Parts: sequence; C-alpha cells; structure tokens
Amino acid sequence: MLYQVEQGIASVDQLLDRVVQTKIEMLQESSHHIIRAGGKRLRPQVVFLCYLAAGGDDLTTVVPLAAAIELVHTATLVHDDINDHSPTRRGRVAVHARWGRTFALLTGDYLFTKVYELMAPYSSDYNVVMADACVKLVEGETLQAATAKSGVIDQETYKRIVALKTASLFRAGAMMGARLAGGEEPIVEALGNYGEHLGISFQIVDDVLDVVGDPDTLGKPVGNDVNQGSGALMAQNGRNTSDGRSISGGDVDPIMAMMARLRDSGAVEIALQEAERMAAAAISSIAIVPDSPASAGLVELVDLVLERQN
Amino acid sequence: MLYQVEQGIASVDQLLDRVVQTKIEMLQESSHHIIRAGGKRLRPQVVFLCYLAAGGDDLTTVVPLAAAIELVHTATLVHDDINDHSPTRRGRVAVHARWGRTFALLTGDYLFTKVYELMAPYSSDYNVVMADACVKLVEGETLQAATAKSGVIDQETYKRIVALKTASLFRAGAMMGARLAGGEEPIVEALGNYGEHLGISFQIVDDVLDVVGDPDTLGKPVGNDVNQGSGALMAQNGRNTSDGRSISGGDVDPIMAMMARLRDSGAVEIALQEAERMAAAAISSIAIVPDSPASAGLVELVDLVLERQN
Repeated sequence: MLYQVEQGIASVDQLLDRVVQTKIEMLQESSHHIIRAGGKRLRPQVVFLCYLAAGGDDLTTVVPLAAAIELVHTATLVHDDINDHSPTRRGRVAVHARWGRTFALLTGDYLFTKVYELMAPYSSDYNVVMADACVKLVEGETLQAATAKSGVIDQETYKRIVALKTASLFRAGAMMGARLAGGEEPIVEALGNYGEHLGISFQIVDDVLDVVGDPDTLGKPVGNDVNQGSGALMAQNGRNTSDGRSISGGDVDPIMAMMARLRDSGAVEIALQEAERMAAAAISSIAIVPDSPASAGLVELVDLVLERQN
Repeated sequence: MLYQVEQGIASVDQLLDRVVQTKIEMLQESSHHIIRAGGKRLRPQVVFLCYLAAGGDDLTTVVPLAAAIELVHTATLVHDDINDHSPTRRGRVAVHARWGRTFALLTGDYLFTKVYELMAPYSSDYNVVMADACVKLVEGETLQAATAKSGVIDQETYKRIVALKTASLFRAGAMMGARLAGGEEPIVEALGNYGEHLGISFQIVDDVLDVVGDPDTLGKPVGNDVNQGSGALMAQNGRNTSDGRSISGGDVDPIMAMMARLRDSGAVEIALQEAERMAAAAISSIAIVPDSPASAGLVELVDLVLERQN
C-alpha cells in the first residue's frame, strides 16, 4: 500500500474513533466495538487512491469523506447482522449478539447519523452523490431481502442487487475522491467506472467466499449470503440449476445443500470468471488516467480484491 | 391554521409521497403506508411558521426542509415501533407488524436516506444543523432504551431524554426555517428557543396521553411509553414514588399498575403544569419576534399542543 494511503487510513481510523464519542456510553461502546474490529478499509483506500490519481496532493481534505464512506458500510453491517441473525462479524461477536437487537438497531442508526455529520461540511455536490449512494444501498439490501424471501432469483436480479448494494457506494467514493482533487469530469467519470466495476468484482468474490471460504479467516460465518440469495449468480451459472429456480428446497439443511451444490456444479469457477471480467473492466476504465504511483495502486487493488481470502 | 401553512403542508405531503417512489415495490408500499397515515405534521408547521415569522415570503424554498424534518420523525417511528413491539401507529397497523422486522428496519433506513436526499441540496450550514439534530435524536432514543432496561430513572435523565430525542429536532426545524427566511441571528435564536420549549411541552403532553389517553383517539396503544420509562417524570412527581425508584415491579402487569399509580398520584397534573411552564417559555422566547399572522400562529400552536387529545 502507498505510504500516503497508509497514513490516510490511520487518520480515518482515528477520526472514526473520535466521531462516535458520546456521553451515551452504550452507544460509544458498541460503535467502538464494530469500528475497532477493523476490516479491510477497502472503500477508504479507493477514495484516497482516486483522489491522488486525479491529482490531489492533500489527503487531509479527503479524510472525513473516506471515513464517511467506511461508516456507511459499517452501519449497514450492524443492521445486516440483525436481519441475518449472524453471530459474528470481523472476528468479533456481532453488535446485536452482544447488546441485543434494540441497541444494535440504534447503533446502526447512530453510525448513519455520523455519516451525515461527517459529510455535512462538504458542499451540496458531494452530499447529493453520497445521499444517492445511500438510497441505492438500502434499495439493494431490500431487494436482496425480498428476493431471499420469495426464494426465487434470476441473474438479472442478482446483478441489480450487487449494483445497488455494493457498487454504488464504491462508485460514489471514487467519484467524490476524484472531484475533491479537482479532477476533470472525464477523469472523475473514469474513476467512477473503476469504482463501480471494482465493487461488483468485490461483491462476487465476497459471495464466492461465503460458499468456499474459511469462517476463521473470514471472521464471520459462511453460508449466510447463500441463505440471503447472494449465491444465486453461481446457482444460475451452475449446470445443476435452471432459470428462476427456487434457492431453498426440501432438504434437511437447505443452506448446506445449496453450498455443496454450488461447489460441485462448477458455478464457483464461473462466478470467479465474471469477477475477473469485472476486474479487467475496472482496469480498462482508468486507461485515460495519467500513470502515477496512485494509478498503479488502483491496479494493485483490483488484484488484491480478486485474490483475497477474507 | 394559516392558509399559507396549510398550502405548505399539502406540498410537504405531495413531496413525501413522491420522494419515496422506487422500483423496489415493497419499500415504496411500506413508505407510503406510514407517510399516508398522516399524523399531525406539527414539525413542518413549526418550520413554516418560523420561516414566515422571520420574514420569509416564498414557502416553496422551505418545503423540502419541512418534509425532511417530518421524515426524520417518521423514520424514527418505524424503528421505535420495532423496538417497542407496538402493533399500531397513526391508526394503522405498524410497518413491522405488517411487513416483518427485517423490512421495517430497512424501511426506517430508507426513510432516513431520503431525509439526507432532501437535505443534500441545501448548503452546509443547514446540513450541519440537521445532522446534529439527528445525532441527538438517536442519542435520546438510546438513553431512553438504556434507562428502560435499567429500570431506574430520575427526573434529570427524563429531561435529558426529552431534550435529545424531541426538542432538538423542533429547535433545528425552527432555526433552519428562520435562517432560510434570511432572519437576523437574534430572531433565529429566539425561534430556536421557541422550538425547543414547544418540543419539550409536546413530549410531556405525549407522555401524559400515554397514561390517560384514549387508544382509539391516539391511533396507537397506551402504556407503551410507561414501559419505556417515559412516564417517569410523572412517577418522580407523584407522591407515591421516590427518587431513583424502579419503574417495574413485582406486579402481575407492572405497566397497568404503573399507569394506575401515575393517574392516582397526582403526577399527571404536576406533569401538565411543567408542560404549561414550557409552553409559556416558548411564548416568552418569541417576544422579540415582530407581530404578524405567523407569530400569532406560533402562539396558537402552543395552545394546540397543550390541549391536544391525540
């Protein structure tokens, strides 16, 4: 990782730690619990690299924005874990499992108000982009939940879910970073496309890891997203499945059965090919961005996303 | 109600209806369900009246802001009802009772992202004020939940809860309305103080109605807030209770017992006296605001809050 980006991430961590300080002890504890659990900080890295690649030279101006992007993701994790009944997150007990559902719901709400607090000092242009990404994210989460409930998914729907719930925030972070650097509109757009494709690639790999990953390395249970319908791209790709097929069945443990079917069907390999295609598209997107250590960092990040094990 | 304000409220209703339109059907249905259930629209009225009282003459500029303020409140109701297991709201079945907890959580999140979307076009000054009010609101909700869980409350804590969860949003709406009108800072501050005191008065009356109100008129169950510790101001005032006393007990139905104790103790009357004191403070706050139909409307609103039955 570029030294500057490393410094930026350290500043994001410090800011996140500070921004959730409150006299309401429980809220501060639960917020610190999830923030200090770490995570890849992939989204802030994208913001910083896009800022630098677009010619920015003062990372401090972009730290609150990068922290806000990470915090949107963090707030979502807290609410997701309530809805998925997931017991662990980032190797720690999930907020709802430790403090209960009521406080977890409030913690997610609190983190989201802090996103707003971090963003408020930026001008309207940025807040409009961020608000739009947040709206899409919740739309994507809801579409996913509705799809999981219906038990029927097709590839089109899977793509919509990924675009809404993951890629939109990556795109927004990339574009805002580039804009804060004063980048020309074609560069901003190129980096936005990079973010979008990287986000899709990231989400597919995430869903693959949910099927074939190691829970200890991941710091969270596997099979969770299969249950939520996210493994369905693979289901659609696999030779044992057909269009519009129900993702649950009459099995004793339908999730485990689904995971086994996905692993055996060759669907994982096909999904990874799609992830690689999106990764390549991310790299093509930034062809017009001038070469620099930061643009090289963007390419490197794509490889990391493809090769990650957690 | 002033004709202009009435027109403004109609515009708010139309905007709220439009702003939650989405291709994710379930989200639109649940959002329309809670928005179209109505409600008093008290907070938008405060925004409009403060805008007019501070000299504003084009209500259209303040409609998105007034809608955002109402939507913060609406989002909170959806999440509150999940946490309180409340079956009805505004005379309708609660969102979680109809669509389940997962979708209710997402609906609340969605409405909150729409608050952000409505606010984003305003300049930073407004977004900073709004973000601060949202943070305080969640802090207040959390303090209330923590207090209810501990089973011990004192009057100091009750006042903190009301200030955070209710008065802060009223103050923010009043101040932003006045600022958008180009009001001088002393006028903005006076109207902010009006909002704060009106909010406190409103919340006390709300808590009283939870003890003595009629569920049919209220459109929601009674006794809910007693369970959440909100009746505790009255508990503290009542002659049958003592400082730091547990609000639950060994009774078969501690909530009903608590309600009966509150009604019998004279605590309701003492709470209403406090509400009247705050109402008087609201009116004193705007002594420096020039007389106008709008300033008369602000005084009238105080009376409505004190006399309301739902």
